Amino acid sequence: MEREELLKSLTVKNEKKILLVVLDGLGGIPYRDGKTELEVAYTPNLDRLAANSSCGLAIPVLPGITPGSGPAHMSLFGYDPIKYQIGRGILEALGLDMDVRPGDVAVRGNFATLRDGKIVDRRAGRIPTEKNRELIEKIREKIKEIDGVQIILKSGREHRFAVVLRGEGLGDGVCDADPQKEGLPPKPPEARNPESEKTARVASEFIRKVTEILSDEPRANTVLLRGFSSHPSLPPMQELFKLNPVAIASYPMYRGLAKLVGMEVVKTGEEIEDELETLKSLWDKYDFFYLHIKKTDSYGEDGNFQAKVKKIEEFDSLLPRILELSPDVLVITGDHSTPSRLKSHSWHPVPFLLHSPYTFRDGLREFSEVACRKGSLGIFYAVDGMSLMLANALKLKKFGA
Amino acid sequence: MEREELLKSLTVKNEKKILLVVLDGLGGIPYRDGKTELEVAYTPNLDRLAANSSCGLAIPVLPGITPGSGPAHMSLFGYDPIKYQIGRGILEALGLDMDVRPGDVAVRGNFATLRDGKIVDRRAGRIPTEKNRELIEKIREKIKEIDGVQIILKSGREHRFAVVLRGEGLGDGVCDADPQKEGLPPKPPEARNPESEKTARVASEFIRKVTEILSDEPRANTVLLRGFSSHPSLPPMQELFKLNPVAIASYPMYRGLAKLVGMEVVKTGEEIEDELETLKSLWDKYDFFYLHIKKTDSYGEDGNFQAKVKKIEEFDSLLPRILELSPDVLVITGDHSTPSRLKSHSWHPVPFLLHSPYTFRDGLREFSEVACRKGSLGIFYAVDGMSLMLANALKLKKFGA
Repeated sequence: MEREELLKSLTVKNEKKILLVVLDGLGGIPYRDGKTELEVAYTPNLDRLAANSSCGLAIPVLPGITPGSGPAHMSLFGYDPIKYQIGRGILEALGLDMDVRPGDVAVRGNFATLRDGKIVDRRAGRIPTEKNRELIEKIREKIKEIDGVQIILKSGREHRFAVVLRGEGLGDGVCDADPQKEGLPPKPPEARNPESEKTARVASEFIRKVTEILSDEPRANTVLLRGFSSHPSLPPMQELFKLNPVAIASYPMYRGLAKLVGMEVVKTGEEIEDELETLKSLWDKYDFFYLHIKKTDSYGEDGNFQAKVKKIEEFDSLLPRILELSPDVLVITGDHSTPSRLKSHSWHPVPFLLHSPYTFRDGLREFSEVACRKGSLGIFYAVDGMSLMLANALKLKKFGA
Repeated sequence: MEREELLKSLTVKNEKKILLVVLDGLGGIPYRDGKTELEVAYTPNLDRLAANSSCGLAIPVLPGITPGSGPAHMSLFGYDPIKYQIGRGILEALGLDMDVRPGDVAVRGNFATLRDGKIVDRRAGRIPTEKNRELIEKIREKIKEIDGVQIILKSGREHRFAVVLRGEGLGDGVCDADPQKEGLPPKPPEARNPESEKTARVASEFIRKVTEILSDEPRANTVLLRGFSSHPSLPPMQELFKLNPVAIASYPMYRGLAKLVGMEVVKTGEEIEDELETLKSLWDKYDFFYLHIKKTDSYGEDGNFQAKVKKIEEFDSLLPRILELSPDVLVITGDHSTPSRLKSHSWHPVPFLLHSPYTFRDGLREFSEVACRKGSLGIFYAVDGMSLMLANALKLKKFGA
């Protein structure tokens, strides 16, 4: 019996409200004066809450595995991130705020340069984003559908774009149409299984037509397609956990991930204050709230230690407004670590704070990587966070008699 | 390779004796003055032993999952509680001290009220237990077997009873014969697979006959049957772990669970002192002793904090008599937590104490939830307790060369 089936068989609906706050890329490693961002940040509210909560460190996927946003969020939403892998094409489309539905196949595209039958630049000289938009508009006008399959396009940055194929009988077992190296001829999209032959045929025809449409372009005169992936059709949180969940997130990728697990996704602003305003206005309508704060990760990726510290302090100063709502269960954590020192996501376990009437009061002196290690939750897998939240909301029946 | 196969391939027999003491529902959460039962209890013997042992917190099934007695004990006996699920009917029969054997199907029964073709009371007005016994006796006299299948009956409390079906070719894939709601007609037992058709037929005929026998009864004039379940036919501890195990437990449910894993089950008294007397008298005859103390759980379920504290203190005062036996490996733990504050089983990890010549001496100041968290075993899955016990008894060979 899989974890999800077990949980599904045990969850009950009640009125209690769970709030999951994800400070993206929250965790850090020692850097300035040997301290992490959380250690340097002045966070009196978080520290006080941590002292009165159960804390621990959450491993996003497996020890040593650095997750992308997809698997890191799947874990926090209670879905085994190795079992439920979200394809690259889907993530790209979600990141561009495209609507992706069950049955769709999504693909990542690059504009590229074709000369004398060979791909001579896999990124078409990184054309400006503005140029990309023009080209996508041009293609969009001329290609609406192929073989009864709707072709939906969206520009990304520079040479990047995404395609969503919508129609009957589309499989995602298609090899990348990308020679990987420059100086080689284009590689046609090939089906790896019979269910994906239609997809490969449509993709092939798409490349042929685009290459015709763009034949006068000096650089962006063909496209490469990668990461064919189906909508993962995840069992929704409503079904698995009997929750009525809503996502408060301003970045497309996270809004998309939330949609994949069945969350309602609402309009909100970019600032933490905007998001808290939205949270408050929706408080009566849902029983599970996913609140996503992006900038902690962005500054970590930039290697901007101070800016990440400031963003954490900003959240701390707003924490009382969250506490005023009196969630029955409150979790504050990150989806993964993004240490400024590494300027990238990392594998380090993430501080995790769980507050409810049924948690221990760990008495930690602060909310940080080092302090959380001494908390009552110990070091655990982030995917177990959901059952802990449900248990603390008394939404799980006894297993067995 | 599954855990059990691995352990089976590594276990060796030797003379060393393991004693597993289970204080049912031992764990608590902060309640009186923010303390747990274990923290309030005066336990000088346990505290001294904890300081000289390896301690930790055991997760009964998965984080957040509240186990019933069945899965909680399976874990402690070294059996994956999700893989080896013990059906409701089996647990009911074991709880009524019925003999259940491989091949049997056990079922939970309710007396109910049938009027004008509809179930109008699913509990027959909660008839007195005495009345239940009379009715079961009456049915027992008239129904010995159906279609070659032996029908074994036992009264429970009020409207509850259990049936064990014993015969050839019985599967347990039978839907509950219970409309779930009052005001609906009786629901016949239906087979979910061909192997269970005989069971469904026998159950159907049983209901028909009982309804005939009880036709003059004003309230208890029919029965509902639920939780059809086969004897789980677990690989016995003798085979998996090369142990010669005995259970000292006074409550039927735990005696039954012990039998399922191959333990010898002996007669003993209800008090801890009685059980210790039994333990001492058997000390030379076995190499694995499961000693079960029920009342810590009962008082937790009643929400009686002080009585649970007292029961822990009583155990503490008797601990020296256990230590006199000098077990090679001693574990003191619970099967799950039953915080008085929740008046029910809970998901919180359980204090676990492991003493042998090869354990660390953690130097904890007391035996409690908070102190054990700092112990050398950390937070671990209870199902791993068995390999820890075997290892400390030098009963496990090296894995691989």
